[in-house]
Amino acid sequence: MVELDFKKLNGLIPVIAQDYKTNEVLMMAFMNREAWELTVGTGYAHYWSRSRNRLWKKGETSGNLQLVREIRVDCDGDCILIKIKQLGDAACHEGYRSCFYKVFVDGDIKISGKKKFVPEQKYGER
Amino acid sequence: MVELDFKKLNGLIPVIAQDYKTNEVLMMAFMNREAWELTVGTGYAHYWSRSRNRLWKKGETSGNLQLVREIRVDCDGDCILIKIKQLGDAACHEGYRSCFYKVFVDGDIKISGKKKFVPEQKYGER
Repeated sequence: MVELDFKKLNGLIPVIAQDYKTNEVLMMAFMNREAWELTVGTGYAHYWSRSRNRLWKKGETSGNLQLVREIRVDCDGDCILIKIKQLGDAACHEGYRSCFYKVFVDGDIKISGKKKFVPEQKYGER
Repeated sequence: MVELDFKKLNGLIPVIAQDYKTNEVLMMAFMNREAWELTVGTGYAHYWSRSRNRLWKKGETSGNLQLVREIRVDCDGDCILIKIKQLGDAACHEGYRSCFYKVFVDGDIKISGKKKFVPEQKYGER
């Protein structure tokens, strides 16, 4: 059995999504217990969206689903690491492969990488 | 300038620590603004310990300090990724290289990797 600690963050656990081949970290999001069970049950990453306050199948709008290849749980059971195959080549809603495209250099930000898609074409104007 | 959003988690931001060479994810912890400034200012990873409710220089007891080689911020400014050189070869307080040594397989946990140190020898009996 796996023990997951959903209590520390009021029902949520931080989840790191990592490319299953290159180990590139693509994003960090949160799961509640339902998102966890859907992820395990379907093999597609599901999260809890804090901004939209609802369950969220990653890629449901963009088509950029995440196929889960491995799941790891940390020592304290309060963080999850999933190794995924990122469909559509981009995890970030801003069009980049990784959400971590901002490199902090000398107190400033430099952009790393190029957009894989134009957000407005995926999501419409927001 | 970098904009960090400390508001979403009451003053804390999740931080992913990743091996700067292999991209292995070693741990996830939290920084408050002071830990962030100390990390940037000293080049050693500092966190906020939720269990001990105090600032925490990673490795202060074990000697397993984390030398920061790169810092990234995610699209929303609410998560930080640091690429580090892990001194002492282990990040996890349980003696493993990575805190994510538990692999979830068919509803159960399998241990991946071997302990690099014996916790009781680093920290004493607790």
